[in-house]
Amino acid sequence: MAEMVSNKQVILKNYVSGFPKETDMYVTTSLIELKVPKGSNGVLLKNLYLSCDPYMRPRMTKDMEGSYIESFEPGLPINGNGVAKVLDSENPEFKKGDLVWGMTGWEEYSLITAPYLFKVPHADVPLSYYTGILGMPGMTAYAGFYEVCSPKQGECVFISAASGAVGQLVGQFAKLLGCYVVGSAGSKDKVDLLKNRLGFDEAFNYKEEPDLNAALIRCFPEGIDIYFENVGGKMLDAVLINMKVGGRIAVCGMISQYNLDEPEGVHNLTRLISKRVRMEGFLVSDYNHLYPKFLEMIIPHIKGGKIVYVEDTAEGLESAPAALVGLFSGRNLGKQVVAVASE
Amino acid sequence: MAEMVSNKQVILKNYVSGFPKETDMYVTTSLIELKVPKGSNGVLLKNLYLSCDPYMRPRMTKDMEGSYIESFEPGLPINGNGVAKVLDSENPEFKKGDLVWGMTGWEEYSLITAPYLFKVPHADVPLSYYTGILGMPGMTAYAGFYEVCSPKQGECVFISAASGAVGQLVGQFAKLLGCYVVGSAGSKDKVDLLKNRLGFDEAFNYKEEPDLNAALIRCFPEGIDIYFENVGGKMLDAVLINMKVGGRIAVCGMISQYNLDEPEGVHNLTRLISKRVRMEGFLVSDYNHLYPKFLEMIIPHIKGGKIVYVEDTAEGLESAPAALVGLFSGRNLGKQVVAVASE
Repeated sequence: MAEMVSNKQVILKNYVSGFPKETDMYVTTSLIELKVPKGSNGVLLKNLYLSCDPYMRPRMTKDMEGSYIESFEPGLPINGNGVAKVLDSENPEFKKGDLVWGMTGWEEYSLITAPYLFKVPHADVPLSYYTGILGMPGMTAYAGFYEVCSPKQGECVFISAASGAVGQLVGQFAKLLGCYVVGSAGSKDKVDLLKNRLGFDEAFNYKEEPDLNAALIRCFPEGIDIYFENVGGKMLDAVLINMKVGGRIAVCGMISQYNLDEPEGVHNLTRLISKRVRMEGFLVSDYNHLYPKFLEMIIPHIKGGKIVYVEDTAEGLESAPAALVGLFSGRNLGKQVVAVASE
Repeated sequence: MAEMVSNKQVILKNYVSGFPKETDMYVTTSLIELKVPKGSNGVLLKNLYLSCDPYMRPRMTKDMEGSYIESFEPGLPINGNGVAKVLDSENPEFKKGDLVWGMTGWEEYSLITAPYLFKVPHADVPLSYYTGILGMPGMTAYAGFYEVCSPKQGECVFISAASGAVGQLVGQFAKLLGCYVVGSAGSKDKVDLLKNRLGFDEAFNYKEEPDLNAALIRCFPEGIDIYFENVGGKMLDAVLINMKVGGRIAVCGMISQYNLDEPEGVHNLTRLISKRVRMEGFLVSDYNHLYPKFLEMIIPHIKGGKIVYVEDTAEGLESAPAALVGLFSGRNLGKQVVAVASE
């Protein structure tokens, strides 16, 4: 019989309504056998990094009508993207010692029976990057910007939640293409980050703008060609009245709406007509086939220092509930990661 | 000196807020010389048919922020699309006796100094068609459906304001392509028209549906691939929760919003993400270059009886204010035309 070890886990207590709280989750310890059942096709992972992402909020709700992913189950560990080391495998694609990224549990060790995992292709960058710039958020920024926004050199690009896991990359991609780039974020530190470290041309703190429309007119006197939408609600309404003819809105997320019982109404959609604007929602999972092309582009930029990536790392699984909840109050500065263990 | 004749005119009294009323306009009579000033590049038209179109409502408002077309001027005749005969011309493109369609005044005779007019290419169809199926609404349906919706055979297509000038054609185009087609309209007569004369697979009266979502689920158990949007507001919200993955929404108009001081909020835009929906506004004027191709397609269908066009004709310029106002209460059955004079 294989070794049994203790396994700390983050459990969802109950379905959540409104803003999630730390107490909607709890940390417990169970036992796990570090062995995959024979013939099961599964892998046994030691989790190294876990990712906190906005799409996890809707998963805390029971009935996610029209969703593309299932809800969490109260009483079971939360799951999401992470980076892990394979301790045992009955799956032909993975072997003991492999470093992998993809869907795993919020616990120290996970037995994954239907792996949605990829081998870590480059180990000479920080492993945590596979929860961010080299993982789902990185691919989201890449597919959303290059495939959905149809960007052209010199265009005026606006990004909301711009210092987040996805936004900070979209802004840097747009700068590489020679666009004029403005971001909004929710604190002075984030605005400083955008302007001084991430190379945005302008940035503003939406919480300190009494009139979002006025802020956008100030930053975009000629209007917006591309809006990379991460927040929804009032910001989208303000953007709609500042779009240029032929503008594009890539709808990546609407984080401002996820904690509301009834989403806010958006009032200015007639501008889609007068300005001939295309507004398009997308999911990164439709673009998985572009991952090799993405790596080819991004790895040299990372190594050459042309693209930077800002992470906010919480230490230890115990800090995971607060880290996840913090996303929705905007506490994180950059991509929110949880460091669970070292290799 | 040329003949002076009396010229009945429909004048906008004042800018309008809320629902327009007949009394927002008045009919008066002035005198006009049936002669174009030498060297003016103008044409003198005898108006035959005038078109009542939803986009005319925003033009009755003073400040149309973000609009693509100017407001009407109180005290002057309303203008819009029409069919006319050239009585005199100083413009090299038009000569006396030509039949033309395009922008003209709501009056018996119009002196047009900067013509936005086209020669009537086929005179062997009803001339009123150049306000509808062969004019701006026809081209709107053609460009909106074929160019914006990216339709495929067998797809499920929903059209709001489906018996109107544009909607009735979109539905017939979709049927020609082998789509499943459902329309909504605001009366039993309109629903009968859609099902019995225009070949729609299904139709419903939105005013008699207590729950628009339920009506859409009933008509589209598998969901909607293409929504041709003419109304906005609550209908759009109901459609959003019934879109299929990869669906498209062509935003042609939002007539339900034009008489409101503050447009209704649309709450279900997060569905754009989970269903990867593209929502795109368009203006027919961007597609003028396709008019010859459109005629090539539509004329044989009209002559062969494959496409029918339902008009609602008001007789005489005096009836024009009521006809225009009636658009916004849905009084018209089919394309609303005003017959001003015969050739």
